[in-house]
Amino acid sequence: MSSAASVPINTSPYADLPQANSALFEAKARKGLTFDEIARAIGKDEVWLAAAFYGQAKFSEDEMRTVCKILGVDSEWSLSQLGSHWWPNRGLGPMPPTDPVIYRLYESVLVYGHAIKAVIHEKFGDGIMSMIDCKINVERKEDPKGDRVLLTFDGKFLPYARW
Amino acid sequence: MSSAASVPINTSPYADLPQANSALFEAKARKGLTFDEIARAIGKDEVWLAAAFYGQAKFSEDEMRTVCKILGVDSEWSLSQLGSHWWPNRGLGPMPPTDPVIYRLYESVLVYGHAIKAVIHEKFGDGIMSMIDCKINVERKEDPKGDRVLLTFDGKFLPYARW
Amino acid sequence: MSSAASVPINTSPYADLPQANSALFEAKARKGLTFDEIARAIGKDEVWLAAAFYGQAKFSEDEMRTVCKILGVDSEWSLSQLGSHWWPNRGLGPMPPTDPVIYRLYESVLVYGHAIKAVIHEKFGDGIMSMIDCKINVERKEDPKGDRVLLTFDGKFLPYARW
Amino acid sequence: MSSAASVPINTSPYADLPQANSALFEAKARKGLTFDEIARAIGKDEVWLAAAFYGQAKFSEDEMRTVCKILGVDSEWSLSQLGSHWWPNRGLGPMPPTDPVIYRLYESVLVYGHAIKAVIHEKFGDGIMSMIDCKINVERKEDPKGDRVLLTFDGKFLPYARW
Amino acid sequence: MSSAASVPINTSPYADLPQANSALFEAKARKGLTFDEIARAIGKDEVWLAAAFYGQAKFSEDEMRTVCKILGVDSEWSLSQLGSHWWPNRGLGPMPPTDPVIYRLYESVLVYGHAIKAVIHEKFGDGIMSMIDCKINVERKEDPKGDRVLLTFDGKFLPYARW
Amino acid sequence: MSSAASVPINTSPYADLPQANSALFEAKARKGLTFDEIARAIGKDEVWLAAAFYGQAKFSEDEMRTVCKILGVDSEWSLSQLGSHWWPNRGLGPMPPTDPVIYRLYESVLVYGHAIKAVIHEKFGDGIMSMIDCKINVERKEDPKGDRVLLTFDGKFLPYARW
Amino acid sequence: MSSAASVPINTSPYADLPQANSALFEAKARKGLTFDEIARAIGKDEVWLAAAFYGQAKFSEDEMRTVCKILGVDSEWSLSQLGSHWWPNRGLGPMPPTDPVIYRLYESVLVYGHAIKAVIHEKFGDGIMSMIDCKINVERKEDPKGDRVLLTFDGKFLPYARW
Amino acid sequence: MSSAASVPINTSPYADLPQANSALFEAKARKGLTFDEIARAIGKDEVWLAAAFYGQAKFSEDEMRTVCKILGVDSEWSLSQLGSHWWPNRGLGPMPPTDPVIYRLYESVLVYGHAIKAVIHEKFGDGIMSMIDCKINVERKEDPKGDRVLLTFDGKFLPYARW
Amino acid sequence: MSSAASVPINTSPYADLPQANSALFEAKARKGLTFDEIARAIGKDEVWLAAAFYGQAKFSEDEMRTVCKILGVDSEWSLSQLGSHWWPNRGLGPMPPTDPVIYRLYESVLVYGHAIKAVIHEKFGDGIMSMIDCKINVERKEDPKGDRVLLTFDGKFLPYARW
Amino acid sequence: MSSAASVPINTSPYADLPQANSALFEAKARKGLTFDEIARAIGKDEVWLAAAFYGQAKFSEDEMRTVCKILGVDSEWSLSQLGSHWWPNRGLGPMPPTDPVIYRLYESVLVYGHAIKAVIHEKFGDGIMSMIDCKINVERKEDPKGDRVLLTFDGKFLPYARW
Repeated sequence: MSSAASVPINTSPYADLPQANSALFEAKARKGLTFDEIARAIGKDEVWLAAAFYGQAKFSEDEMRTVCKILGVDSEWSLSQLGSHWWPNRGLGPMPPTDPVIYRLYESVLVYGHAIKAVIHEKFGDGIMSMIDCKINVERKEDPKGDRVLLTFDGKFLPYARW
Repeated sequence: MSSAASVPINTSPYADLPQANSALFEAKARKGLTFDEIARAIGKDEVWLAAAFYGQAKFSEDEMRTVCKILGVDSEWSLSQLGSHWWPNRGLGPMPPTDPVIYRLYESVLVYGHAIKAVIHEKFGDGIMSMIDCKINVERKEDPKGDRVLLTFDGKFLPYARW
Repeated sequence: MSSAASVPINTSPYADLPQANSALFEAKARKGLTFDEIARAIGKDEVWLAAAFYGQAKFSEDEMRTVCKILGVDSEWSLSQLGSHWWPNRGLGPMPPTDPVIYRLYESVLVYGHAIKAVIHEKFGDGIMSMIDCKINVERKEDPKGDRVLLTFDGKFLPYARW
Repeated sequence: MSSAASVPINTSPYADLPQANSALFEAKARKGLTFDEIARAIGKDEVWLAAAFYGQAKFSEDEMRTVCKILGVDSEWSLSQLGSHWWPNRGLGPMPPTDPVIYRLYESVLVYGHAIKAVIHEKFGDGIMSMIDCKINVERKEDPKGDRVLLTFDGKFLPYARW
Repeated sequence: MSSAASVPINTSPYADLPQANSALFEAKARKGLTFDEIARAIGKDEVWLAAAFYGQAKFSEDEMRTVCKILGVDSEWSLSQLGSHWWPNRGLGPMPPTDPVIYRLYESVLVYGHAIKAVIHEKFGDGIMSMIDCKINVERKEDPKGDRVLLTFDGKFLPYARW
Repeated sequence: MSSAASVPINTSPYADLPQANSALFEAKARKGLTFDEIARAIGKDEVWLAAAFYGQAKFSEDEMRTVCKILGVDSEWSLSQLGSHWWPNRGLGPMPPTDPVIYRLYESVLVYGHAIKAVIHEKFGDGIMSMIDCKINVERKEDPKGDRVLLTFDGKFLPYARW
Repeated sequence: MSSAASVPINTSPYADLPQANSALFEAKARKGLTFDEIARAIGKDEVWLAAAFYGQAKFSEDEMRTVCKILGVDSEWSLSQLGSHWWPNRGLGPMPPTDPVIYRLYESVLVYGHAIKAVIHEKFGDGIMSMIDCKINVERKEDPKGDRVLLTFDGKFLPYARW
Repeated sequence: MSSAASVPINTSPYADLPQANSALFEAKARKGLTFDEIARAIGKDEVWLAAAFYGQAKFSEDEMRTVCKILGVDSEWSLSQLGSHWWPNRGLGPMPPTDPVIYRLYESVLVYGHAIKAVIHEKFGDGIMSMIDCKINVERKEDPKGDRVLLTFDGKFLPYARW
Repeated sequence: MSSAASVPINTSPYADLPQANSALFEAKARKGLTFDEIARAIGKDEVWLAAAFYGQAKFSEDEMRTVCKILGVDSEWSLSQLGSHWWPNRGLGPMPPTDPVIYRLYESVLVYGHAIKAVIHEKFGDGIMSMIDCKINVERKEDPKGDRVLLTFDGKFLPYARW
Repeated sequence: MSSAASVPINTSPYADLPQANSALFEAKARKGLTFDEIARAIGKDEVWLAAAFYGQAKFSEDEMRTVCKILGVDSEWSLSQLGSHWWPNRGLGPMPPTDPVIYRLYESVLVYGHAIKAVIHEKFGDGIMSMIDCKINVERKEDPKGDRVLLTFDGKFLPYARW
């Protein structure tokens, strides 16, 4: 069956992505590959790769070709859409999020945002954690009481300019 | 000077907190203690403690007494406000956040929310990362190109009920 | 300590309630009574009583007097505010809710609203479940894998008028 | 006539669902089956089944095949859309809801949210009722003054992590 | 000309309705019938009929057949869309309304909502006027200074449950 | 008790009204008078009077004096606030309304707004029902199956200018 | 070139208008006529005509025929869409407006709305300037320092009903 | 009585203005002067003066002194608040407006905004009508069928820069 | 590959632009030209040209022909859409912006808007910086610590009319 | 008079700032100093200083003392509020802005945001202009046709992490 996998391009979030992205998702499902397996082929992390699939990060031309080759997608066609002339239009889905997985991340901002801010200020001074120079990681941590998701943001501290 | 530190109780977020919370912030500033120093005294993490200061987590009565003792705040008065009858009214500050530190967390949801969701599903199946049974940590990671903030969420995976 | 319990009348939701309601919450905390214990005295359910404490339901004059007597609150003063001339201004707190307990109820509407609607239509026809003629109940159900909340809505079905 | 039943795929909520979901609704109408009759075939509750029809829960592959068989829908086609590679994008319809049936549920959050929260805290302590590990049930309760809808949420209590 | 009347199905509110509803509007225009003339044929009021045309009320199968016959619309086709398996998805158009006719009704809620609530409470006690068991009527009242619209809501009073 | 009646001036809607309006509400409660009884004294309808109490309509100086006399309120003080220099700032309470009584009126706009508009156009042509030159009435209609609220809007039809 | 003029029917505001309106805009561009030239042919003002082109006013059948004749558009086809059965669905474009021309009008409400209201009350008493019985005019006024736009609203004063 | 006139400084829009503005309104009411009478004394239009009273325009020091003298308000005190160091924080009241007078202006943008824009483009080219270099006027125009409000905006046309 | 470049016309912002604009973007990518190279051909700045590509500025007929010639696009076809009869519908993309590049500009308004306003008032008096008569420039400034973006707005100061 | 200058602390934006900030504004007005004059004393730009006055940037302790000395404000008192324990809560005023000066900046994002983004991508690649490491400048540029505001953002380019 997976050889016929499709994604509903009329529904969120596929409706808001270039066609080539939907093709990548369909090919991935048909090949039965994980994000991690594809990501390794281009030396990237699975979260970054998933972000690129959702149009939130930009493949280099080489990466695009390698990914297309693995997935059996026409790379010229993909590059005609997502090549060097294309730039991500970042930000996907409604806010507040309606899906519970994404909402929980939003809830972390509502409930723990001020606490995280206060600890950052105490440890670093006046500045922010960059979400541009930031690496994100999702790990599965085994736990007898129920496995846990380990979600890590590793972002550069940027002090405020004073001029 | 720090002996006279005050917090602007007419402004956000203090205006939305019980008076006792403002008193804790003022006392912390006057004593010159860090969240970490106070947190260790009650065996908690600094992020959790900061969340409790912002009214987003609940001290046990013993914890409240210890914290008050360290800070020189009247513990009976604090407990009259934040004692066993008080429950956090969680969620603080505007959404979307206007402060750049908190906004960057919000931006992570906008840009990487779908990617994180997809990787969680791939690794765990249909379910969510709990934000209730979740521990949050902020570390400073030295880096010659500029130190980095390491922000970790360690949350239990909860599979969807099927009934 | 509980004899000095107070509620933070500058914060949500107390800031949006008549003073007498805050006094009821304070007195309840000082007396160490549960909603259920107070509710039994006037032959009501604890959820209804809690709703009345939050200004979302209306005590009869007799109920108000009995509740005040139990809690040691001046009943004439309470009735001067919440007597027969006062009518609930229903609806409390922000929407979407920011507190995770209340948000989960909201999430049930987002995720299961259409399913519940469809089953109601299938079982009853074109109409609604009344939220006016509706009784709500919260029970604790023991479970070795973790106790559960049993939340029940018992509302009259109202068929649409056809005229 | 029912053999020609269709659903308006240009309108809410069908426009926001994969095509296969619309096909399930049409087939159900043409077969004249209730949610309950279909649900029993896969050992599930009717509310859960309706949620799956609305794209808010995920069929296992076996369940999908059984449901398709009962309804006379091509199961390979359905699985190509809703198979193991598809994950629900939960959250359906506008908020605040405009349909009176769903609005009444929303109104229960507005009017009784704080009361339910307070009783949960009193009976369980600081935590929430899970909407992930939650079973929902709709029953018709006969009543001479007008039948009633019995809507039950049976959700696990989750205490807040303290770390 | 009216024999060629059409409605713009790409625009509001037709874009949010099943196709069959648009067909009813077109047929009505082509036949040159009023809502009242059609409504009488099925023993209903013109406002209720107009609501059904806008997908806000549900025809019985017999009513649908009669209406289709009068209008020369294929009743099997209409029933395939709006038959017993279809339930109104009530709520149509933006809020606040942008059209002045509908905005004026909205304005009545803004300006006179509290006054109407207060008089209802004074005359009936704690409860609401049902919008489910409610009949609505629009009459033209001649007046030398300019004719007037007489808009009447006749809704059942529902007292709040106390449990 | 009613001689001590008060209204909670820190809460909605009193917090949004001039002090004199709160005084009128308190005096009305203390005197035990209905809106209708007060309205008759100045030859007005009870709904209009209630609107004036809520700051949504303007008393003439004579009306203000008469109302103050009946209620035992200092008329000079009331006129210093609500006299000829004061003009209503119309529009009271949140939208969408959270109170179920007022929400039901709002729901009538959502569900029946287009139907009412269509019937008005059919009976009058292109124009609106004025909400400025409009009289509103609330009657109690006895009914063995439960009394009903009869809410009537009697508004002038205004044709659109064509220039 | 103008003989091939087209309007982008997939974009705002054309996407929200009946097809016939787009055809009128295209024909006007191809003929190279101004709003004023077309308006004179039916004895109307150019602003009113432009409003009708944007679906915000209603042509009589005769006017429609004359306009179609001038523009070389099939009048039967236009009337099949915009004939006597069609009523404007007034209100076009986002609010707040994003286009600077329209935003400046919006800004006039934000900045001068209260001043205009106050002067109207002072000159006319309690009431409004009708936007239904209102004529709007745009003139070019030469000025050596830069020509000026003279925008005039001529609306009937409507006193509030008192009943 | 007017000698005791006051304005409700806890309510909109006075709550959003400097105290000196409220004092100007009270003094104007006590003196029984119109906006026009005060405006003439400083050679300004009544609409501009009303805007300045509402904090939407800036008096010169001389104008402030003259206005204070006429109204019997302490000019030093007014200038301490509204002197050369104070700049208007323009924009007053909610959007969409709830008051019908101001809403009608807003409605003119909704309904006629595109038509006005189109006529301006046709007469002037690509640019806007300035709301900064704009003079606004309100006149009463007698009319046997009911007097009319003549509201005029006289704004400079600004062509778009092309660089 | 670039000879096949395409833009995703189903996604933002292309979905909100006339087709001709998408064709310009595609042709630019296929030719491998920069905004600057195209802009020089018509004597304009690259930011202005990019704005025109996004439908936010208006080409003269000559400019359109030159640009089409350079890019190999049919100029008659482009002019049929974007010719003299077309006027920009300015304002593109959601607010608040979700893309981090555009959000940072928005953040500058949130954080530095009042400071910029205050300095403008101090240097120029009561008025605004025009965004109509404004030239915008983006330069790359080399810097050993990381190159910098130099973004300049050169806008005419407009003093407020006083009338 | 300036010796008595005050700022309206009940109104926006002062109501959202610590008291010490209002005191700085008042002292500046009383001393008759410009932002530039104060900024020079601490070696900062006037825009940065104005941002600090509005609570959007953080003074070092030395800077605070110098500024207080110049302005004659008690530096210990200022530091008790804005000392090392205080961190800016950035983001001030409503969005969309209502004041025309700030709105024009917002409009630049609406109209030119995509163009600026596209040019940045073309010149720098995938990344953003930092608003944290950014210096902002406002200059007056003389021009015979009317002086101009030169507003410059000098922000570091940050390339997106790829991990």
